[in-house]
Amino acid sequence: MNKIEHIGIAVSDLEASVSLFEKLLNTPCYKKERVDTEGVETAFFRTGESKIELVADTRKAGTMGKFIAKRGEGIHHIAFEVDDIESEIRRLKQQGFQFVKDEPVSGADGKMVCFLHPKSTNGVLIELVADKKKG
Amino acid sequence: MNKIEHIGIAVSDLEASVSLFEKLLNTPCYKKERVDTEGVETAFFRTGESKIELVADTRKAGTMGKFIAKRGEGIHHIAFEVDDIESEIRRLKQQGFQFVKDEPVSGADGKMVCFLHPKSTNGVLIELVADKKKG
Repeated sequence: MNKIEHIGIAVSDLEASVSLFEKLLNTPCYKKERVDTEGVETAFFRTGESKIELVADTRKAGTMGKFIAKRGEGIHHIAFEVDDIESEIRRLKQQGFQFVKDEPVSGADGKMVCFLHPKSTNGVLIELVADKKKG
Repeated sequence: MNKIEHIGIAVSDLEASVSLFEKLLNTPCYKKERVDTEGVETAFFRTGESKIELVADTRKAGTMGKFIAKRGEGIHHIAFEVDDIESEIRRLKQQGFQFVKDEPVSGADGKMVCFLHPKSTNGVLIELVADKKKG
């Protein structure tokens, strides 16, 4: 794993949280993106070589809403950048780690992504992120 | 804020979690440190320009134990590196952010640290981290 690609934060009201995090991080939100396949809208901030990604539902009773109902707004996941997502999934499965889905899917920000199951990672929801292969 | 200095993860059994994260991150734990003033022991891993810090209590009914009892093991805080912690605290207070303590204190890893109150930051516990001033 190369670096922290981003930290995902579950929020209820994306616009209110964008305003809050612009003040907090002292840097503007540089991109917003809807991911309709996941039913979320996202907003990105740069911090060093990593990003902060705010995530809010675009439909009722979505993933973020369920998380927030249970635990409140807050840190949802850590995403690590990897070069080759398939080989990293294989390495982690051999070490006994479990995945939410077995295959990487298309995520926000033009990336291929895959989530480890937090039961196998000390309660931490971890995402692997890799650039989409060209060609 | 310059970068993500580290992500703090609350764990119950430091040795078991060190073993897990060595496999997960595919990198060895490079340092362990007890912080007796905070009643915790910590273990560090490098990932890009940032660190993962596992944190476990060294006394019963400590901060991590209370967090874990309420929310389970998992991500506890994000720490951002700043150059001048006093001026960053002033800037954030002017923006309306609240702090757990008003003054920075000595933390793990030879740093001065200060926590923002998660009520003012969308439920995210945020730590500011700066190198101790020499002189």
